[in-house]
Amino acid sequence: MSKLEDIVSLCKRRGFIFPGSDIYGGMAGTWDFGPLGVMLKKNLMDSWWHFFVEKRDNIYGVDAAIIMNPRTWEASGHTATFADPLVECKECKSRFRADKITDNISESVTTEEFLTTHTKCPTCGKENWGPIRKFNMMFMTHVGAVLPDDDAETTSKNVAYLRPETAQGIFTNYKNIVDTIYPDLPFGIAQQGKAFRNEISPRDFILRDRECSQMEIEYFVKPDAWEENFEKLRALQHDFLTNIAGLKPENLHEYEVPEKDRAHYSKRTVDFMFDYPNGEEELMGLAYRTDFDLQNIARESGKSMEYRDKRTNEVFVPHVIEPSIGVERLFLAVLSTAYAEDEVGGEKRTVLKLPYHLAPYKFCVSPLLKNKPELVAKAREVYDLLRDKYTFVTWDDSGNIGKRYRKQDEIGTPKCIVIDFDTLEDDTVTIRDRDTAAQIRTKISEL
Amino acid sequence: MSKLEDIVSLCKRRGFIFPGSDIYGGMAGTWDFGPLGVMLKKNLMDSWWHFFVEKRDNIYGVDAAIIMNPRTWEASGHTATFADPLVECKECKSRFRADKITDNISESVTTEEFLTTHTKCPTCGKENWGPIRKFNMMFMTHVGAVLPDDDAETTSKNVAYLRPETAQGIFTNYKNIVDTIYPDLPFGIAQQGKAFRNEISPRDFILRDRECSQMEIEYFVKPDAWEENFEKLRALQHDFLTNIAGLKPENLHEYEVPEKDRAHYSKRTVDFMFDYPNGEEELMGLAYRTDFDLQNIARESGKSMEYRDKRTNEVFVPHVIEPSIGVERLFLAVLSTAYAEDEVGGEKRTVLKLPYHLAPYKFCVSPLLKNKPELVAKAREVYDLLRDKYTFVTWDDSGNIGKRYRKQDEIGTPKCIVIDFDTLEDDTVTIRDRDTAAQIRTKISEL
Repeated sequence: MSKLEDIVSLCKRRGFIFPGSDIYGGMAGTWDFGPLGVMLKKNLMDSWWHFFVEKRDNIYGVDAAIIMNPRTWEASGHTATFADPLVECKECKSRFRADKITDNISESVTTEEFLTTHTKCPTCGKENWGPIRKFNMMFMTHVGAVLPDDDAETTSKNVAYLRPETAQGIFTNYKNIVDTIYPDLPFGIAQQGKAFRNEISPRDFILRDRECSQMEIEYFVKPDAWEENFEKLRALQHDFLTNIAGLKPENLHEYEVPEKDRAHYSKRTVDFMFDYPNGEEELMGLAYRTDFDLQNIARESGKSMEYRDKRTNEVFVPHVIEPSIGVERLFLAVLSTAYAEDEVGGEKRTVLKLPYHLAPYKFCVSPLLKNKPELVAKAREVYDLLRDKYTFVTWDDSGNIGKRYRKQDEIGTPKCIVIDFDTLEDDTVTIRDRDTAAQIRTKISEL
Repeated sequence: MSKLEDIVSLCKRRGFIFPGSDIYGGMAGTWDFGPLGVMLKKNLMDSWWHFFVEKRDNIYGVDAAIIMNPRTWEASGHTATFADPLVECKECKSRFRADKITDNISESVTTEEFLTTHTKCPTCGKENWGPIRKFNMMFMTHVGAVLPDDDAETTSKNVAYLRPETAQGIFTNYKNIVDTIYPDLPFGIAQQGKAFRNEISPRDFILRDRECSQMEIEYFVKPDAWEENFEKLRALQHDFLTNIAGLKPENLHEYEVPEKDRAHYSKRTVDFMFDYPNGEEELMGLAYRTDFDLQNIARESGKSMEYRDKRTNEVFVPHVIEPSIGVERLFLAVLSTAYAEDEVGGEKRTVLKLPYHLAPYKFCVSPLLKNKPELVAKAREVYDLLRDKYTFVTWDDSGNIGKRYRKQDEIGTPKCIVIDFDTLEDDTVTIRDRDTAAQIRTKISEL
């Protein structure tokens, strides 16, 4: 098995991540977080929120609806251009994303270009393709009382989309926030929430799913101050990724996106790439978006997005720098960093070396033997004591002590505390360290 | 203005809640949480999660995808029956929910019954109705590469829905959790997340919206132990609503739903009703659902939902008790409880008497005068000190001190700390209490 397969298997076995709608054979591109996954995901999202919002004086949160007025996507350009090249095999009717079934072609491939690649259909092996068509990746729905036999006009009036990014829920609230908080520049608006992309071929576990959680900040600056703020945010992202998420600097690569690959409005974009088990992939992006989004909204809504500087009375439309990260991408980067297979006392084991503040449980409390009531009772006492103090404490009296260590190693619990017969004599316990497997003896009162 | 209108106005003015897609004239039935709303909502959701999941030894979290395999909704009955009675005026083509435009008819009204009520169209005033039709409230979308010109069969194969409740994301993971955690009965699975209902007429602010956040637990018990567990959960809900959410017991009414109004599978349902500004409304429900859901899933999936008792080896399908609450309903109940208009020193004011642990900011720090650099510098010192310790501290040097108090009262900040000229002499500050407006003098070192 590849390392990625090992991680997927651990995630399912231990209750981090299950395939979505598993019981019905799944739902491609969706994943469900299990009990441990929810804990790790919440720790990651709360750490991000604390680091970027709660600790900052000038970053404010919003939580906008997923179903937005469709004019949002007219203004942002998503209705027209958020599309992948779709190609259909005329023989077996299978559909594919053209740029993913052959090498060296881009998302803007034309039918003529695609035919020159002489790609065979991955399903039936033949080469008989229909034209390249643009497939919009927004999930479409209808809002309000639309009936199946309504005419096309009535139906199309009620079209809406699931947001393909959280960013527009921020931009559309820019004016609300300026009007209620009157913040000085620079200031940021942050949002965590779900976004949806109807990928033609979801793949790579949680890396390319149809439903993901994003964490985005739109940072509003004076137009001539974008460069210094870009540098500040770049340093902050690096600080977060290494010191809070615990990623290794050597696995992070900042990639200056060249002009030809940048969105036309972006004057600078840095992608933070991460060495995933299957290769380097984008973990997050940092983009200078100029005033592109606010100008689009001003045009579409007819409302001014201008900002008046309180000191100088200068009036202008702020420019924007956007750090954007996907929770699932971060989750997998953290798991990939923590996942290790090593040997302890001559035995192979799998261990998740998660940072303490991210680990689902901080301590596991165990009686050495589960059939000795006096050990169990004493262990329960220690468990209750630690639960009161640290909340994230788990109890394990299954199997033998070796099995319990292996289980706790796999779910990343930093310390196992074992109550044995000596505990009954002198109130000391064994503390075993996850990473080194070293054991020390300590007084209960010093835990 | 009614009290509800006052609250809606405060929410918009201070950045708790804005209408969704406000900048484009809105999107009916959607709402965006602003900076303060996000803080209060997060405090509520985290308090619930801590109370019901983190503090319990036998309740586990899941976070399932919003787009589920459509067989989920076949099994649960939503595809067939999750529908409201829709009626169309033949004159002006307006559409309404039949049971909402006239009194004393139920959701299961027939066309004949409706016509006998002689209801006039709320839009054009005429009485010329089409037949009652069932309108399914699930938002429909298509997953995968479906093109606009695909035939009906291809298109219908790819139909999926946005989940209308979080509960089914729990039930479909029941087997995953039993297989990974092997919990003893009783145990619960909890989920917080978005749910979507295409209401024909969204109304009552955030009470009847199209997109809401739910917090649900499915509590699995031995069939013969449902009554005692029902009582335990009922007491826990009451404890949460009064002691954590801060609602007043006199505003909560437990309503035993009579058999004729219960779902056919439920042997007992208690609705927790709350006195909202516009009248009594359901805040949360507690339902004994028998083994209805697990049996549906077993039938639809062909997989066994049986549980084997580790001690007795007995094999059976667990029964379920479900406490379910909507975050927005709780949010409005908390705001309604906290909202007050009173008089302080002969001046009228609006105040949000939020419990300390729910208030967005715990402290506000202010220099008495903003044009005295020595006061501002000293106030900044105090601010930094408190920010380090409590995080949720705000700074306010706008307007005069009276205006600042009124603003902090409106957003529910429990304490305002003011730095004045005496502070420079003796390191004492004024602390003003939100609820009583009483001021005391204390040493900075004792804050």
